[in-house]
Amino acid sequence: MKDTYYSIGEVAKLANVSVQTLRYYDKIGLFKPVYVEPTTKYRYYHDSQLYHLDLIKSLKYIGTSLEDIMKVQALKAEELMDFLNEQELIIENKLSRLKEIQQNVSRVKKRVRRQLNYPAFGEVVILEEDEMLILQATSNNLSPLDLLNASYSKLKRIIEEEEGIIDNSYGGIYAYQGYELVDEIKYTHLFTPLLTDKRIITLSNEMEVTKIPAGTYVGIIFTFSPDIYFSNLKKLLNYVDQYQLKVTGDIYELFMPTSYSPNEQEDYTVEIKIRLRE
Amino acid sequence: MKDTYYSIGEVAKLANVSVQTLRYYDKIGLFKPVYVEPTTKYRYYHDSQLYHLDLIKSLKYIGTSLEDIMKVQALKAEELMDFLNEQELIIENKLSRLKEIQQNVSRVKKRVRRQLNYPAFGEVVILEEDEMLILQATSNNLSPLDLLNASYSKLKRIIEEEEGIIDNSYGGIYAYQGYELVDEIKYTHLFTPLLTDKRIITLSNEMEVTKIPAGTYVGIIFTFSPDIYFSNLKKLLNYVDQYQLKVTGDIYELFMPTSYSPNEQEDYTVEIKIRLRE
Repeated sequence: MKDTYYSIGEVAKLANVSVQTLRYYDKIGLFKPVYVEPTTKYRYYHDSQLYHLDLIKSLKYIGTSLEDIMKVQALKAEELMDFLNEQELIIENKLSRLKEIQQNVSRVKKRVRRQLNYPAFGEVVILEEDEMLILQATSNNLSPLDLLNASYSKLKRIIEEEEGIIDNSYGGIYAYQGYELVDEIKYTHLFTPLLTDKRIITLSNEMEVTKIPAGTYVGIIFTFSPDIYFSNLKKLLNYVDQYQLKVTGDIYELFMPTSYSPNEQEDYTVEIKIRLRE
Repeated sequence: MKDTYYSIGEVAKLANVSVQTLRYYDKIGLFKPVYVEPTTKYRYYHDSQLYHLDLIKSLKYIGTSLEDIMKVQALKAEELMDFLNEQELIIENKLSRLKEIQQNVSRVKKRVRRQLNYPAFGEVVILEEDEMLILQATSNNLSPLDLLNASYSKLKRIIEEEEGIIDNSYGGIYAYQGYELVDEIKYTHLFTPLLTDKRIITLSNEMEVTKIPAGTYVGIIFTFSPDIYFSNLKKLLNYVDQYQLKVTGDIYELFMPTSYSPNEQEDYTVEIKIRLRE
């Protein structure tokens, strides 16, 4: 290739970089003119230098810091391969994190849509449910009116570490039986939905990853208040009795916040549901 | 759920957030205690507030600014759906950009690996080549020793806009014939490899996206210097004559930088190749 020199303005035009950027690159030693005229201080760049800007721009594009770009410039081809392999790993990690976030957002959308489109509050409805992956912890002696957000802090911490949260719903499981008083209800498990099917490796003894099976459920949904919790549950249980439905042994309950503003009264919808035998 | 209050330290533990962060959230109005004791200034949080931290942490995880989180907190469920739809789009864009970068890096790796593993410099070799997608511009009256990095600035600008560059190689195409002098060579086209098969929509008249076909090539690779350019080309042309190879009408040339340091003498390898007829 030919011997040709350019001013800083010409390089800016040719390489689609601002003059300010070129001055800055000169200052930090990232990309320097081959010659600076001593009196005028004009910078002169050689044509053959231009391709260095390709590398700089490419590495900036993939998110490399200017400091690291300088390190890359010093690499020989073999070392550049190592660098590129590293970049590939970083990109793969970013991709799988993004895919996870995508899954999360789509699940939350599904939940919000469900809350918005629920056919009737305070009425028993038939639900065709997909399988729900959950992280559950054994519980003892907690009843619905004793439940705290704090009761979920261990579960949430694991979800946060593994998945970065996003679905903030809180679940409980208790045995199917004919309750007469709300205090008779004792959760066997508390759970929170898992958003991805990543294997969780930090589980303690009292926790496990399991599934709420797909199938047909009878359920009731209502805005939580301590006064009406039990009457809604009773309505559901009476419905099962009245139609002599064959159900499986567990009752699933899910609390979902409906307001996200910290200035408003908290507002939860509760969904209680029982799976029918096939 | 039950009426229970926590100190800032308890919330920090329960929600896995630092006390400093909670103080900051209070200050900016993102997450405030329900009660502050007037004399001690102790903050008291209600249990039902805890889930707000889920939302805050989740949105932070997907990259939402604190300012935007405050806006999201004020949304009703319907509006939250719009927000989530928007987030999905943002995520999709990020994903496709990352996939592009991944493709780019893998292509550059391939090129560097090829440079490293080339069987013999200055010797004619047989090459089994994959198809190469290129962006080419017509050229007139440029010959190899007149070629400039600057000659590629228009091509590079388009690649940069569409793909963010990364592969910094520079190509030329000229007719296959029996040259006697280097100045007889005139490029018909200059090109730069395309890394992705995204459709480019900003093409001007003299440019087009095309392919260097897959197939068997005879080629020669050497470290560029004006003195040896022509003798290497002649060696390749003589080889074709000597073995009476049937070749197609174009000679392809690719310049690839081997040093990335702006402080070293520029160093290019040149690959010249001719495709054999099937």
